[in-house]
Amino acid sequence: MNDLRNALALGREIAARRLTAVKVLEAALARIEARDNEILAWKLINPEQALAEAMARDAEEPKGPLHGVPVGVKDVLDTSDIATGYGSPIYEGALPSADAAAVANLRAAGMVVLGKTVTTEFAMRFPGATRNPNNLAHTPGGSSSGSAAAVADGHVPLAIGTQTSGSVIRPASYCGVIGFKPSWGAVPRAGLKMLAESLDTIGTMANSAADAEAFALALAGRPINPTAPLDQPPRIGICRTVAWPNIEHAGSRGLEEAATCAAAAGAKVVDVQLPEPFATALEAHDVVMTYESRGMLAFECDRHWDRLSPALQDVMKRGMNHDWPAYQSALANRRACRKSLADAFQDVDILLTPSALGEAPKGLSFTGSPDFNRIWTFVGAPSITVPGLMGPNGLPVGTQLIAPLGQDSRVIGAAGWLQNLLQA
Amino acid sequence: MNDLRNALALGREIAARRLTAVKVLEAALARIEARDNEILAWKLINPEQALAEAMARDAEEPKGPLHGVPVGVKDVLDTSDIATGYGSPIYEGALPSADAAAVANLRAAGMVVLGKTVTTEFAMRFPGATRNPNNLAHTPGGSSSGSAAAVADGHVPLAIGTQTSGSVIRPASYCGVIGFKPSWGAVPRAGLKMLAESLDTIGTMANSAADAEAFALALAGRPINPTAPLDQPPRIGICRTVAWPNIEHAGSRGLEEAATCAAAAGAKVVDVQLPEPFATALEAHDVVMTYESRGMLAFECDRHWDRLSPALQDVMKRGMNHDWPAYQSALANRRACRKSLADAFQDVDILLTPSALGEAPKGLSFTGSPDFNRIWTFVGAPSITVPGLMGPNGLPVGTQLIAPLGQDSRVIGAAGWLQNLLQA
Repeated sequence: MNDLRNALALGREIAARRLTAVKVLEAALARIEARDNEILAWKLINPEQALAEAMARDAEEPKGPLHGVPVGVKDVLDTSDIATGYGSPIYEGALPSADAAAVANLRAAGMVVLGKTVTTEFAMRFPGATRNPNNLAHTPGGSSSGSAAAVADGHVPLAIGTQTSGSVIRPASYCGVIGFKPSWGAVPRAGLKMLAESLDTIGTMANSAADAEAFALALAGRPINPTAPLDQPPRIGICRTVAWPNIEHAGSRGLEEAATCAAAAGAKVVDVQLPEPFATALEAHDVVMTYESRGMLAFECDRHWDRLSPALQDVMKRGMNHDWPAYQSALANRRACRKSLADAFQDVDILLTPSALGEAPKGLSFTGSPDFNRIWTFVGAPSITVPGLMGPNGLPVGTQLIAPLGQDSRVIGAAGWLQNLLQA
Repeated sequence: MNDLRNALALGREIAARRLTAVKVLEAALARIEARDNEILAWKLINPEQALAEAMARDAEEPKGPLHGVPVGVKDVLDTSDIATGYGSPIYEGALPSADAAAVANLRAAGMVVLGKTVTTEFAMRFPGATRNPNNLAHTPGGSSSGSAAAVADGHVPLAIGTQTSGSVIRPASYCGVIGFKPSWGAVPRAGLKMLAESLDTIGTMANSAADAEAFALALAGRPINPTAPLDQPPRIGICRTVAWPNIEHAGSRGLEEAATCAAAAGAKVVDVQLPEPFATALEAHDVVMTYESRGMLAFECDRHWDRLSPALQDVMKRGMNHDWPAYQSALANRRACRKSLADAFQDVDILLTPSALGEAPKGLSFTGSPDFNRIWTFVGAPSITVPGLMGPNGLPVGTQLIAPLGQDSRVIGAAGWLQNLLQA
């Protein structure tokens, strides 16, 4: 059979009856059995239940190009048949009364939920047990730690991630896979344990831009019409952002390599400065995130304060220190950023920017800095990280591409083009 | 004891130990016992549990100005100790694992959850059993039917509503109470059964603007600092909107009466036309609502289609007929509306507009038209309906006030001023 890294290829084989959903699932379970005692990407798997689901899919007419493909679901999305813990001891073993809308949509597309992947506590900073498959001594990043590691290690071809700061792009970059954060609002969030209402975005982990896009469309309940690959090199704007002073050598060298590679392939590459409102966007994002997350977790703060990690308690305290006027002024900054972002795209199709400061940090207690991701989550622009480069420690270094809000297919097209170059 | 129509007064008496939360709750339960077999405002009450909660509040130091006050919670918000059915047979008897954030906040403020109030199916159009307390043969409006009726009939001084089209303002207008829809984003929505992510707003039913504001601040987890009453008449813009051709006699006469009354009290009153992007806002709101609600209810559509009402099935089908470009173009219309709304406020402080077409329609199968509410929900502007006028059938006719996004205290101040005039 095909390996477990190409979802659309698996779907094609299943649709042609050259492969079954059960066979693919068995291969995935075997890989997990062999590897996950070290990687610890999975929070909960019920093999019998997943096999029953796969058998049911094999008994049906294929419902679409991803029919029969097994996926991992980050454990902040509700599943009505698998306990959902949100990465917190408060909800250990709790069984939701419904699937999250995105999970219902992927099941309606014929996909098979293999199990729940490890998340940090409420998709915040306190880490789960997962290790980076490229080097077990390093963090996989977070908060979508298990989803990134599971895809990187070939357990499943696709997994769901969510991003409020940098929780899709960063772990994907650290683990060496594609991480795609669609435009804010593209994937419905009913049944997601919310962290910050105006920021939380459901995204996808995959091994190719085409797979990432197909999966995101399935999660959105939309028809899976693939974006055609770019037929000419895009006009690229290198965008260093206000986070640049903290860049590490691996990060700056990665950005340079990607830009050089793109230029050599015929892309016009220029430097782009973000408009003035972005100067304060990192601070404004932090105000919005901490203010809203204190609101979202009101029940947990009021009833279960002692069961929150000190790291989360600290975020909650910071959120309480922001009052309504401070929150409103951060929202005003966001409106100004959104409005002015068009200026950054006047002469370019796509922005090229680091996915993270550099390689995955050593150790499992710190999931790394999201400072190259937060402003894009803040404005809701679609972003994608493309693997293919390596840092000095032999760990992956991702390259991030950004398009304007609503232009999701533009980052997909450019990412497919760039991945071909970087992995050539 | 004080009657059950003034929450802040009850809170003051409780704080001064001249009254207890238990006594207030007992009075509320007695009123419900006497009246609710006809009104049918309540979905579920557990008197023993509510009394235990009230006793616990009486044993504490008051936590704020609403400590000990009993409230009704619309049955689309999760409660961890009262079954939460979302107005649908699918969830009949289901017990959530957490309180909604807004419910946690009101409990943290010392308020007592008396029980769950009737909602239409998933806060959409299919009605619950509730009747209008002013005339049992008429609809109370929806979707916050039980909350509006319970407050209007003096069961509780406060109740939670939610609005996606006109589900707070319209039932409040029909029942003759204050309905307050804060700015989009003001009250956290974790644990709300979502209908449309970018529209759903949690609001309050009350008998005065001051009570409505205090309760909304409690739901938001913010300090309860009351807005000072206006010390001079506001500059008022009469805004008839594109819904005007459908106005009924009671609605147009109500608007005229309110304007005349305000002018007689010294307010400068002028006509205001909404900027050009609002010409298509009703259609755009419908696209956003149906598209998003189909996404939110993906699980219910996929697994429980036959248990949805025909009315809801119709909304779901309309949502599926809108594709991503149609949704994006409706969002672009919203951005244009939001940006241009400032023009409407150039010479006025507040907009005055009908709360509904007229009085509550006869019959219980149709909850009335939300067309005078939808554009304000669409842009997220704070709105409030003020009681005090009557229509030809002896039923209440509300007057709606609108302020720019984020200017919640402005509608509160103006509503307090107007209510004094209309109820004088």
